[in-house]
Amino acid sequence: MVKRKARRLRIIQITSLGGAEREGERKATMMPRVAMSWRNGLIMRIPWRTRALNTLNDDVHSSRPIIVSPPLVSLDIPDDWTPSPPSSHFDFPINCSHEQTAAVIDGKSIADDIRSRIGSEVRRMKESIGMVPGLGVIMVGQRKDSETYVRNKMMACEEVGIKSNVAHLPEHCTKDQLLKALSKFDVDPSVHGILVQLPLPQHLDERKIMDVLSPEKDVDGFHPINMGNLAMRGREPMFIPCTPKGCIELLLRSGVEIVGKKAAVIGRSNIVGLPASLLLQRHHATVSIVHAFTKNPEHITCEADIVVTAAGVPNLVRGNWLKPGAVVIDVGTNPVVDPSCERGYRLIGDVCYEEAVRVVSAITPVPGGVGPMTIAMLLSNTLDSAKRAYAFT
Amino acid sequence: MVKRKARRLRIIQITSLGGAEREGERKATMMPRVAMSWRNGLIMRIPWRTRALNTLNDDVHSSRPIIVSPPLVSLDIPDDWTPSPPSSHFDFPINCSHEQTAAVIDGKSIADDIRSRIGSEVRRMKESIGMVPGLGVIMVGQRKDSETYVRNKMMACEEVGIKSNVAHLPEHCTKDQLLKALSKFDVDPSVHGILVQLPLPQHLDERKIMDVLSPEKDVDGFHPINMGNLAMRGREPMFIPCTPKGCIELLLRSGVEIVGKKAAVIGRSNIVGLPASLLLQRHHATVSIVHAFTKNPEHITCEADIVVTAAGVPNLVRGNWLKPGAVVIDVGTNPVVDPSCERGYRLIGDVCYEEAVRVVSAITPVPGGVGPMTIAMLLSNTLDSAKRAYAFT
Repeated sequence: MVKRKARRLRIIQITSLGGAEREGERKATMMPRVAMSWRNGLIMRIPWRTRALNTLNDDVHSSRPIIVSPPLVSLDIPDDWTPSPPSSHFDFPINCSHEQTAAVIDGKSIADDIRSRIGSEVRRMKESIGMVPGLGVIMVGQRKDSETYVRNKMMACEEVGIKSNVAHLPEHCTKDQLLKALSKFDVDPSVHGILVQLPLPQHLDERKIMDVLSPEKDVDGFHPINMGNLAMRGREPMFIPCTPKGCIELLLRSGVEIVGKKAAVIGRSNIVGLPASLLLQRHHATVSIVHAFTKNPEHITCEADIVVTAAGVPNLVRGNWLKPGAVVIDVGTNPVVDPSCERGYRLIGDVCYEEAVRVVSAITPVPGGVGPMTIAMLLSNTLDSAKRAYAFT
Repeated sequence: MVKRKARRLRIIQITSLGGAEREGERKATMMPRVAMSWRNGLIMRIPWRTRALNTLNDDVHSSRPIIVSPPLVSLDIPDDWTPSPPSSHFDFPINCSHEQTAAVIDGKSIADDIRSRIGSEVRRMKESIGMVPGLGVIMVGQRKDSETYVRNKMMACEEVGIKSNVAHLPEHCTKDQLLKALSKFDVDPSVHGILVQLPLPQHLDERKIMDVLSPEKDVDGFHPINMGNLAMRGREPMFIPCTPKGCIELLLRSGVEIVGKKAAVIGRSNIVGLPASLLLQRHHATVSIVHAFTKNPEHITCEADIVVTAAGVPNLVRGNWLKPGAVVIDVGTNPVVDPSCERGYRLIGDVCYEEAVRVVSAITPVPGGVGPMTIAMLLSNTLDSAKRAYAFT
């Protein structure tokens, strides 16, 4: 009995922030250890209000809200990648050979194969029912990169026989003008996919525009209802976002098992990182999501059998971040100055390729890896949508 | 030059499944290493078709689909938790004391505080505008557990002054009868939250019912558009699912920092595991999701600063799965036979409590931890919805 009593006395109950505590000894003994030991070394980039909510010393009992969890958007500060150098205590057990040991996953060639098959399907559709898939593209302003992307998408459509239309709106168009263009595509039965080329100029709220887009024509898969259905087991989105869908295709076509594997996804953007992590999980990988707030990200990536990186930081992932034999899908496409190139720059990935190829078993190159797959998946999504619309099998 | 040539020869390009290979040597050398070494020891519970897609030896080139990724629902096999015993090579560095060192996070007391504050808000609303929040509950059939849950929710509503209505439908009601009941609540301006008590009888498709529910009254937060908005940065769902929202409240109110911490979520159900992992990520934790296909889950959990477990498996998480000083939120509520209890059973969590309290710094008990928070969050969501509807601040 004495022993039981002694133990019971050590049970400290946490009842709420501030205010009266059930156990007077709490502040002096247990809880500061929980909270304080963690505060040291914290990446202090969270707005003051959010940080303040996370303290035990908030004594303004009466003025705090019923629910202390802040609105989620208040937490959405940009991922600013300033990775700390690997700790000196962390010696990576790398069997680093002096030669390249990695197989190169040739996204260009796989994408070509997919595009050629889509072309055959479109011809079959045309011959059978006299219809072809249609894609409507909305482009606002004259960003050079956006113009290039849109041109490439249209050329790819033309090549496979998908009819594409671009609604090109001026930089200073109103929200209503944009919604009108969207609506025109939306009601047009010959348009099966609509994409709004992002980013939009700042005066247009991307979220509000995307919310208006019909989920049935959202070939980019960015509508929240498609994202929710991608996340939830037992559900199927109308469309899976093109880049992560391309990543999974590359893995499957390369014979990489996903089930039961440890996967690290670096980056958590709505268009790549988030859907990639959700997709890998639907494929039964054990997924860890690494982002700018992750301390020692290399401790996580070096345990992963599959690494998908979409951070947008050149050479973020060094050879010693990777497990020998892992498979790496590098979504990063970062321009770096290179006077020896005709354009004055060249594209490199998030992964230090020269180091990685000596460690991993397979890797996508940049360019020529994930990039070509994105457009191929856009064509595939548009074809699927047309097939659904015409009940064509 | 010779060296460069030699290296280039070792670059093996993976171009597509089966069919002609760019490099004749591929099958014999590199790729089998990638695929085969992983296949050993795989948990072979994936349907045949999906497994077959993951092989390099698929030679039926012409008959395979353009996109080899299978429909996601075809992957949705149940999580059957049969964890392997910890490997003998894995010695946990536990500073396991003989006494309880963990602070107990008293969910009951925190929930009471929240409910009392909700009661005050409801009274203030009534006094100011003459309105109170309303909750509509749809209950089909006579499952004993569902009846208990519904009764508890209604009693909690009454206690804080929220008006609740139950539409009780017979076990064999048609889909149309159910939709009619939903619609009645949906158009009723005095109902601000609707919940459909799950599980529904098998002849009713839960997904189709949930899709019809207005996201604006989806106080359970299970509508895919709310889940998508929970997942996507820059967006805010109308409602966050009650149980994971309660878990975050417990962490914040206990002074536990989430930013930059490693969090392991055990379980990936649509109602707890998935939204808990998304929420923790919005709070900038580095999240790993452990499920039934995870090999050696203890290797992941023992690195985590925060463990949220919702697997529904009694005592799944042993003391040696946990990092000393971690914080544990145990969502599991599992009945186990106990003749010494009046009802013949008692409830225990997913975590082996007796072991965990000697390792971690804080833990929720079962019962009295997360459970009471779920209903408190339901009341909070209903109050929020009414405030939005009446623009009451």
